[in-house]
Amino acid sequence: MSQPQQAYTATDHAMMARALRLAQKGAYTTKPNPMVGCVIAQGDEVVGTGWHERKGGPHAEVFALQAAGERARGATAYVTLEPCSHVGSTGPCADALISAGVTRVVGAVRDPFPEVDGSGFEKLRAAGIQVDVGLMEAQARQLNKGFFSRIERGRPWVRVKLATSLDGRSALASGDSKWISGEAARRDVQKWRARAGAILTGAGTVLMDDPHLTVRLGDDTPFVPPLRVVLDPGLATVQRGHVREGGAPTLYIHATDARMPRGVEADHVAVPVEAGRMDLGAVLKLLAQRQINEVQVEAGATLAGAFLTSGLVDELLLYVAPVMLGERARPLFDNLHIDEMTERLNMHVAETRRIGEDVRVFVHPGPAPK
Amino acid sequence: MSQPQQAYTATDHAMMARALRLAQKGAYTTKPNPMVGCVIAQGDEVVGTGWHERKGGPHAEVFALQAAGERARGATAYVTLEPCSHVGSTGPCADALISAGVTRVVGAVRDPFPEVDGSGFEKLRAAGIQVDVGLMEAQARQLNKGFFSRIERGRPWVRVKLATSLDGRSALASGDSKWISGEAARRDVQKWRARAGAILTGAGTVLMDDPHLTVRLGDDTPFVPPLRVVLDPGLATVQRGHVREGGAPTLYIHATDARMPRGVEADHVAVPVEAGRMDLGAVLKLLAQRQINEVQVEAGATLAGAFLTSGLVDELLLYVAPVMLGERARPLFDNLHIDEMTERLNMHVAETRRIGEDVRVFVHPGPAPK
Repeated sequence: MSQPQQAYTATDHAMMARALRLAQKGAYTTKPNPMVGCVIAQGDEVVGTGWHERKGGPHAEVFALQAAGERARGATAYVTLEPCSHVGSTGPCADALISAGVTRVVGAVRDPFPEVDGSGFEKLRAAGIQVDVGLMEAQARQLNKGFFSRIERGRPWVRVKLATSLDGRSALASGDSKWISGEAARRDVQKWRARAGAILTGAGTVLMDDPHLTVRLGDDTPFVPPLRVVLDPGLATVQRGHVREGGAPTLYIHATDARMPRGVEADHVAVPVEAGRMDLGAVLKLLAQRQINEVQVEAGATLAGAFLTSGLVDELLLYVAPVMLGERARPLFDNLHIDEMTERLNMHVAETRRIGEDVRVFVHPGPAPK
Repeated sequence: MSQPQQAYTATDHAMMARALRLAQKGAYTTKPNPMVGCVIAQGDEVVGTGWHERKGGPHAEVFALQAAGERARGATAYVTLEPCSHVGSTGPCADALISAGVTRVVGAVRDPFPEVDGSGFEKLRAAGIQVDVGLMEAQARQLNKGFFSRIERGRPWVRVKLATSLDGRSALASGDSKWISGEAARRDVQKWRARAGAILTGAGTVLMDDPHLTVRLGDDTPFVPPLRVVLDPGLATVQRGHVREGGAPTLYIHATDARMPRGVEADHVAVPVEAGRMDLGAVLKLLAQRQINEVQVEAGATLAGAFLTSGLVDELLLYVAPVMLGERARPLFDNLHIDEMTERLNMHVAETRRIGEDVRVFVHPGPAPK
């Protein structure tokens, strides 16, 4: 189904790159839908662009076709994701492309969503349109890694955010972890929260730090507020905390035998707990069922360690502050026990960047891709 | 004595920048002398360049004047350090500049060495030469930070090299620290060793890792082998180890009451030990007396922690490997005890760079310079 890479021209690449940048504009608002961008071009000339802004709103192709008008006839449409073929909330985009008279569609990647999954491209081909699929596929999958994870793996993409000292400490022995990171890093975190479908923490963090876990971008950039998820096996924290306040929905996940205190109204759901540890796989499956694409874990060493040792971390978002907290301070991950070098956890650094006085490091599990 | 910054032209800056790059060529060979570069120019045209290669060899100015020949007459000489005025091993450079007919000398920084310390510039001025001092002074001091430290503070510049996991661990609980860093990082370390006047370690590292502590650049780049220094209070390691083998001199520093075992021939010197801890200030003073400009500490968490808690670290050279070693592993620094956030050790990140799969981070104590 994919064309060989060399079949694409420089113009094709430039147009798809633009479509990907357009798609990105929906990062804070399209969830649980994927981000999609579309560029319609007559040769080198762009005649229409569009991006998907939010669930229930028009798809990227609709905006781009409207902008192109009559000039869509005989044009090429570049789409970062396969156009839909099913009647969703906005009608099938494949049909719209056909009736607009587009003669070629270049798609970055097939939509894994069961109601699409190749049928959009098929419909276009059946109408006599040239369809080329696979241009900048890796970038397109990366863009919607949460959506692909949810559809293909049945669980959200898990990003574990940690603030650490240079000597790898997440908090003092007292539990105090306030302001390890600088102001710029704390602002940066908000952007990654805004992308996420859910922000997940543990009861310990609620008791110790009492975070709001809301998104504060500092300007009027629109975003869909992420669900706040508290893992609280015994439902010990449901009567307190900023995390219950307005601004975003809150979900408590607890052990099967825990009971909600009388008089407390809260969204809650039970998962199995074994040997005192919550089944994190079950937690993630549950969040996927609630259409969460990306989960950002913002918790202490215990929960971060539990995700890591369960092999459920897709990326670490580390803010390394230029301070030393000393050997008595808390580790980055609890219960990570390594006795031999052969047991060490190998990861790779995907990106480093200075954020104010801190260094932001994205770390992915396993060896670096070749 | 310094000219205001705006008095320098773009040509002046370009020439001094070139002189600084030339000076840098002596990084591995001039010790204990400072690196010096010299550019002689007629307006925009460079007529001679030189750099100081090694102690006992000609100074930068001599090379540059030789290259310029008659064209030095009426020229400007750019020097990264004040020209010498005393008869050392190569005769005073100030006199050479005067007799060559140079009419202007631009110096980056005054030479703090007591036998120079302004008298070189004075001699030039007395001969009617225009002398401008202070162009790119910060860079020139940075270039010879070890030399300036030794002359001005009476102790070498201390660089503590550490290999660490992402979770801030220097070794497993067993002490095993082999190959935390990748190959590229291990090669990179050699360059910083080659710059150093001494590489310092502790008896524990000699016993555990048995390092050579020699410079292995992998090619035929010339260097002056750094002195290997072992802090061994009880002289427990003097009869063993690669550190005693050829390639570089070795110095043992021990407690006043320790005695060299019969039959062992080794360079050694005593410093005071109090409450089981060696007086590291005395160690550094002693190394300065031996004309060491830069010391690279390559030791374990105990000695690294002792330098850090004594306030004797000028820079940390961290190689952060993308692995997790877990909470049982050894900390980066022993005996760094911090109970309150207000006691935390604030530092700043001066540079980060990817070195193979690892991240190299230079960290300096205190807040970032404004």
